Amino acid sequence: MFEAKFQTFEDRAAGGDTAARVKALRAELKRLKLDGFVVTSADRHQSEYVPPSEQRLAWLTGFSGSTGAAMVLADKAALFVDGRYTLQAAEQADKSVFEFVHLRERPPEDWIADHLPEGATLGYDPWRTGIDGAERLQKACARAKGKLVAVADNPLDQVWTDRPAPPLAPVVLHDLKYAGESAEAKLARIRAELEKQKCDAAVLSDLASVAWTFNIRGGDVAHMPVALSWAIVPRKGTPLLFVDSRKLSNQVRDALAKLAELHERDLEDQLTKLAPGKTIRFDQSTAPRRLADVIEKAGGTVSKGSDPVTRMKAVKNAAEIAGARAAHARDGAALTRFLAWLDREAISGNVSEIEAVKALETFRRETGKLKDVSFPTISGAGPNGAIVHYRVTEQSNRKLKSGELYLVDSGAQYEDGTTDVTRTVAIGEPGAEMRERFTLVLKGHIAIATSVFPEGASGAQLDSFARAPLWAAGLDFDHGTGHGVGSYLGVHEGPAYISKLGTAPLAAGNVISNEPGYYKTGAYGIRIENLLLVVAAPAPAGGEKKLLAFETLTRAPIDRRLIDARLLTAKEIEWLDAYHALVRKELEPALDAETRKWLQAATAPLGK
Amino acid sequence: MFEAKFQTFEDRAAGGDTAARVKALRAELKRLKLDGFVVTSADRHQSEYVPPSEQRLAWLTGFSGSTGAAMVLADKAALFVDGRYTLQAAEQADKSVFEFVHLRERPPEDWIADHLPEGATLGYDPWRTGIDGAERLQKACARAKGKLVAVADNPLDQVWTDRPAPPLAPVVLHDLKYAGESAEAKLARIRAELEKQKCDAAVLSDLASVAWTFNIRGGDVAHMPVALSWAIVPRKGTPLLFVDSRKLSNQVRDALAKLAELHERDLEDQLTKLAPGKTIRFDQSTAPRRLADVIEKAGGTVSKGSDPVTRMKAVKNAAEIAGARAAHARDGAALTRFLAWLDREAISGNVSEIEAVKALETFRRETGKLKDVSFPTISGAGPNGAIVHYRVTEQSNRKLKSGELYLVDSGAQYEDGTTDVTRTVAIGEPGAEMRERFTLVLKGHIAIATSVFPEGASGAQLDSFARAPLWAAGLDFDHGTGHGVGSYLGVHEGPAYISKLGTAPLAAGNVISNEPGYYKTGAYGIRIENLLLVVAAPAPAGGEKKLLAFETLTRAPIDRRLIDARLLTAKEIEWLDAYHALVRKELEPALDAETRKWLQAATAPLGK
Repeated sequence: MFEAKFQTFEDRAAGGDTAARVKALRAELKRLKLDGFVVTSADRHQSEYVPPSEQRLAWLTGFSGSTGAAMVLADKAALFVDGRYTLQAAEQADKSVFEFVHLRERPPEDWIADHLPEGATLGYDPWRTGIDGAERLQKACARAKGKLVAVADNPLDQVWTDRPAPPLAPVVLHDLKYAGESAEAKLARIRAELEKQKCDAAVLSDLASVAWTFNIRGGDVAHMPVALSWAIVPRKGTPLLFVDSRKLSNQVRDALAKLAELHERDLEDQLTKLAPGKTIRFDQSTAPRRLADVIEKAGGTVSKGSDPVTRMKAVKNAAEIAGARAAHARDGAALTRFLAWLDREAISGNVSEIEAVKALETFRRETGKLKDVSFPTISGAGPNGAIVHYRVTEQSNRKLKSGELYLVDSGAQYEDGTTDVTRTVAIGEPGAEMRERFTLVLKGHIAIATSVFPEGASGAQLDSFARAPLWAAGLDFDHGTGHGVGSYLGVHEGPAYISKLGTAPLAAGNVISNEPGYYKTGAYGIRIENLLLVVAAPAPAGGEKKLLAFETLTRAPIDRRLIDARLLTAKEIEWLDAYHALVRKELEPALDAETRKWLQAATAPLGK
Repeated sequence: MFEAKFQTFEDRAAGGDTAARVKALRAELKRLKLDGFVVTSADRHQSEYVPPSEQRLAWLTGFSGSTGAAMVLADKAALFVDGRYTLQAAEQADKSVFEFVHLRERPPEDWIADHLPEGATLGYDPWRTGIDGAERLQKACARAKGKLVAVADNPLDQVWTDRPAPPLAPVVLHDLKYAGESAEAKLARIRAELEKQKCDAAVLSDLASVAWTFNIRGGDVAHMPVALSWAIVPRKGTPLLFVDSRKLSNQVRDALAKLAELHERDLEDQLTKLAPGKTIRFDQSTAPRRLADVIEKAGGTVSKGSDPVTRMKAVKNAAEIAGARAAHARDGAALTRFLAWLDREAISGNVSEIEAVKALETFRRETGKLKDVSFPTISGAGPNGAIVHYRVTEQSNRKLKSGELYLVDSGAQYEDGTTDVTRTVAIGEPGAEMRERFTLVLKGHIAIATSVFPEGASGAQLDSFARAPLWAAGLDFDHGTGHGVGSYLGVHEGPAYISKLGTAPLAAGNVISNEPGYYKTGAYGIRIENLLLVVAAPAPAGGEKKLLAFETLTRAPIDRRLIDARLLTAKEIEWLDAYHALVRKELEPALDAETRKWLQAATAPLGK
């Protein structure tokens, strides 16, 4: 039977007496002579997924969303979440304990300015707050005529008596045949970059940056194969790698010892030793305030900016690209088996969203190569498909029904690549409006897939191509069109995004998603997502600019029953038919006869 | 004969012994115990055009471009200009006196940090430097371990003995039939906005903001009908208007005295009186550092942000829109007479760029309504057309030649509206490449003109629509696609731009240019520019978003001989034919028989 090993469906009520927890925290704060404390959802690396030992906000409030914050004062407490999570927070957190506040409309700073008593002292955890965040808190306290104090040992940990231990998953070496570049060569490039930027060293605080640089992978965090770790890369001399030695086998330790001095817990001491008179590059989006304090206290200069690794790892080399192609062929075959199965079974009304997640994960596991899913599958039938960040639980679970749409957004971690793909399929006969809107989304998807643009152009300059067909119909979607994807690393990685905020230039070798959508609240959701590789485009005769274009990596059929071909141009039809022919050709060898037959029909040219 | 009254063609060598001037300035600096001084091209309002009395940079350096800066130290001097002006600066300024530095690649701050001697004192004019600029200078001096000192009386004025007197053009009232809203109503809206933004008052430092608010126009600055003036609008109480009383007739004075307390030169005293305990909105892009100092010294708080008037005046009301339509019909008729004349005459090879400027201005003057040109006409034949900011001089003047392209970018100031239009025309038979590229630019122009987008979308989200056809051919243009245009005010106004930096949302009532281009250095330039009005678009059935679209205001034929219709879609041809039919219908009544006949041929449907 189908089974999910990498994702769960537990109901949202996280349980636990949060009122008692808040009370205990208040007692601890009193002992520390603090009038309040800021609890964030971040860990020390500002990661997207954090291990259970770092889920302080969830433990204290019951709210399990990925982003949020809480303020606990002596007589008031507030939970801050963004628009995606308003409903979930209201379900999960105790409103007799917490006031619920919209994170964007009324940021914690404003709440502090209004509620922190004059002369009060507010504590925060400088390990789990970035430099920008700390500065905002500082200003808010000044407005309230209060004081902000950094508390290096989080007071929550004193009252969270059954806090899980930090993870200790083994570190493995990432094979050169997948990495495509030795750690030595990567370190040389980082040093050259530091030279160029006139920095003496870089602190690598992003777990993916450490993993990429040293060609290692880990298992400390769900869905992303990284190890909790830090690194310091000096412009000259030996790098320092900070990782719990219990995660290292002798073989891994020996290999890493050739690249770096291995350390465990003395990051602050080593930084203090290194910093005097030095300029240290410090990643503004992932590095904690605490390390900036350490550097400055030791007489060093913090050079705020982006992690020098971010742009390097976003440009995939030949081995990573070959790996991505192999991963997408494998993943596409599994997804196609799933879609064929779904097409046979769902019409009966007996397939639930959870069953579908289990089936899809099982097909992927049956490739024999699946390391993890790259994020919890979004499996939304009917109205649940319209919830952009939907995660099915036993409570919300819904059967797929004839006449409805089903949206499935999922991905896999394989050693040779990370995938992320969304398909929307009709269960039974779709309505005319569904087909019209699916076709508009498809037009936007094709516009991105076929776009050609000069070197230096950013994703922000392409984003509207995905929206124009929807705009003309008075429709839109409320998320970006695409995000970068790692190579057996995070499924969301910078610096490139196709979104109005994505101002980083796209570069050949970037892998980025193309996922326009349309969501009709209470009715259905549509999203069509493929991953794209940025490639050099052939130079047109008489052209003056070096051009870039996209090559679609994802291999899976797009539901023809949802396409109203009358709304497509000849060129759009040509693109779809060519894409389907490619999918068929590449996947057929890996498929059983039944699925192969299904795929032949599913990828028949539109005209037929 | 044709004549230009509003523009000149003098050669660029500005003359004058700049070495002697720099020497005199150095002596004056020594007297003031300053080791150096920063000279900017700005006046006290950071205007695009400044009166001769404010052209300090040009007087000192010979460089007459619109933007630049100079640093004068005891033994070194540097002139900073951007890429547009590198060649011109080299022609005009004395390289034995000035080092030439690229303003963007090596900003003055970096140069100061490297060249200001330790312990030295650098002076700057806080009236002609904004708060951001002053902060950058401050940091640069700190890096050089020097000191920055504000010098309120510019030392240049002590040595510029024949400095022209400031202008004293009369102020006139802008008729309500053109303005469409009384000054009282505008002031009430500004007060409401201050209330909303929790400010006690606003300083209006942008000349166009003062003119718009009080419904006045002036003549102190070339090409833009404004008076040198300031205003303070308090949230409660009477506004203060600062203007030289010699510019006011009794009638104008009486009218203004009903709206505001009239002042002349006591802006600083009045601000000092008003400021204590108050929060004063201060326009970050046009207000001088000096006024921030005055406010802060008096115990007030400077609320940095955008001028509250900027967004209001960008949204044209019904009277302004009616005025814009009338102005564009009138202007289009004059431009069409010019284009018909050019078509008859240029083929002879006897028409020069200057003669063309004179002819076009004359046709506009013959409307009997021309107040000024809205900027110096860009009249570029052949390779001169490829220079984006070209201004023809006696020296650069070129005859229009058969087989070449001619680009003319011009505009007019009428009491009912400001125009800005570019046409590119073939002299004789154009080459295939010219036609292909003109058609690609036209496709981009039509893509913008026909775009439909939801409320809240910005010009940055539309800009790429103008580029996509060029991108596909490996081409692009190196400027934004469009800028806002005032109503009998500045031809460039914020906040909306169609450019990757134009993140302000577009609003119904905005007037904005649509001017994609293509420039082949040393060969030819192409630009097709119409002004657009942002309008509410009809709601499609089933649509969910309020939509906006553009209505084209400009009326003038687009050269059919340059269009390769095979490159256009049926919809693009339909747009062009409909546009031409409209141009013909609206302009014919105002045209002589000969021009009418020419226009009929010039606007014939593309198929014919």
